[in-house]
Amino acid sequence: MGTGLLNAFANEYKLLLEAELRTLVDKLDAPPVIKDAMQYSLGAGGKRIRPLLLFATLDAFGIDPKRGLLAASAIEMVHTYSLIHDDLPSMDDDDLRRGKPTNHKVFGEAVAILAGDALLTYSFEVMGKIPNEYTSSETKLRLVIELAKAAGTEGMVGGQVADMEGEEKDLTLEELEYIHIHKTGKLLRFSVLAGAMIAEASESQLENLAAFAHHLGLAFQIQDDILDLEGNQELIGKPVGSDAVNHKSTYPQLLSMEGAKKALLNQINFSKSFLNQSGLKTDLLLEITDLVASRDH
Amino acid sequence: MGTGLLNAFANEYKLLLEAELRTLVDKLDAPPVIKDAMQYSLGAGGKRIRPLLLFATLDAFGIDPKRGLLAASAIEMVHTYSLIHDDLPSMDDDDLRRGKPTNHKVFGEAVAILAGDALLTYSFEVMGKIPNEYTSSETKLRLVIELAKAAGTEGMVGGQVADMEGEEKDLTLEELEYIHIHKTGKLLRFSVLAGAMIAEASESQLENLAAFAHHLGLAFQIQDDILDLEGNQELIGKPVGSDAVNHKSTYPQLLSMEGAKKALLNQINFSKSFLNQSGLKTDLLLEITDLVASRDH
Repeated sequence: MGTGLLNAFANEYKLLLEAELRTLVDKLDAPPVIKDAMQYSLGAGGKRIRPLLLFATLDAFGIDPKRGLLAASAIEMVHTYSLIHDDLPSMDDDDLRRGKPTNHKVFGEAVAILAGDALLTYSFEVMGKIPNEYTSSETKLRLVIELAKAAGTEGMVGGQVADMEGEEKDLTLEELEYIHIHKTGKLLRFSVLAGAMIAEASESQLENLAAFAHHLGLAFQIQDDILDLEGNQELIGKPVGSDAVNHKSTYPQLLSMEGAKKALLNQINFSKSFLNQSGLKTDLLLEITDLVASRDH
Repeated sequence: MGTGLLNAFANEYKLLLEAELRTLVDKLDAPPVIKDAMQYSLGAGGKRIRPLLLFATLDAFGIDPKRGLLAASAIEMVHTYSLIHDDLPSMDDDDLRRGKPTNHKVFGEAVAILAGDALLTYSFEVMGKIPNEYTSSETKLRLVIELAKAAGTEGMVGGQVADMEGEEKDLTLEELEYIHIHKTGKLLRFSVLAGAMIAEASESQLENLAAFAHHLGLAFQIQDDILDLEGNQELIGKPVGSDAVNHKSTYPQLLSMEGAKKALLNQINFSKSFLNQSGLKTDLLLEITDLVASRDH
């Protein structure tokens, strides 16, 4: 992923994160099947973009990114729980995720629901257990509260509900943005904010980084919609044009392809301008931003 | 419920709790359908035994029970989420709960899963937001962590998994106790501990009250099994003997009815002896304990 610098950083912290996730679940005193189901989906790969954003944010403050390992693990657990529940027969009814059978296909629906519940629950314990030498109780409490807000009805769950309600309907641009900002945007945004909170950022730095992450999240979604039409089927892992087949509202459909590409560029420029105002060492975050705009999967 | 004293106390705090739950969900900025689904199950009644234990524990320390309103709300949200998910078609597949259609029967499976997810998530935000004048950040963080442990794979979720795996099997007494201690015991126990933590109990008081609550939880389950065989169908809300029909392992089946009644008495006596050692004003907690032993539904 990206240039040598970001590549090495991303690979190093991806390995650390995946080892931490395995250890965290492994040490639970619980029936083996639920631990297996949690490990299965946590270990199913993916870009680990949320943890990467958290680690890169800590790096921007000159703080050792390892301090963010538990917070990043908590966020990845929440992301993973959301995928398990989204894939269920009563939701998106998906049999495959990243080329592997979905959790309920392997463990059955009941265990899949409970594995999602368990990951969501554990995320708050993990977040609360960041060592005291890394961050204060006040900050940990704020991390717990903001994680709950990003994941709950005012964040991810609210976005998922709006997405389900919007299926087969022609959405306005405003409705489409509501879905994206909530379903994926809030947790991406929180990933940056969590890094900044652990780094003891000032309130104005938090606002600045929240704006950066908000626009980055929108850019990510617009590029998703563009790739659905112009991407390489093998790289994106689904048939080109599947959004239209599924009657999903998209940016190119609402804005034309040219308009969507312009909107993407605008969001990327917004992101970067907030980063450039931050006064932080933002080389990794800038590279991630460029990658979002030019990624092919 | 119970004598005049406990009765008045239980009624007062039940009303306060139910008003608080309504307000907490009402103020969420989220799609109406998810708020409706959350309110539906939160408002479906029930004994509110967990909040009552929390309030009565605060009273035992001479602390205004109102300080426990947010913690009690958080615990009741977790309990309610567990009922919604347990009732799902892929789990217990129940159409009715407390005489009303279950959440998925009214809102559909997808919204019911998300309403459960939302309540679980919100519980941690609510717990984290206890006012600073009521308790320190350190205590709030401990409450969040202990709530997660009581609800997760080392608690309720672990018990639910073991319960599912034990279906149609002849369980040993040890396996039956594992299920009860985890599926219902840990959250009951936490309800008492949460009150004690807010009251700034010493570690030895916490241990003492944890032992009280542990035995109370077991007593509750034994009485449940006894009522299934000897209870009044209309009062317990299900056909007498339904555990046997469903091939559920129970205390009377493993110990004989006489043995189960003796085990109940033992657990009640253990509970009370821990209470009596506590040196606290335990009149309400003792009354709740007596009620558990003599309840008819």
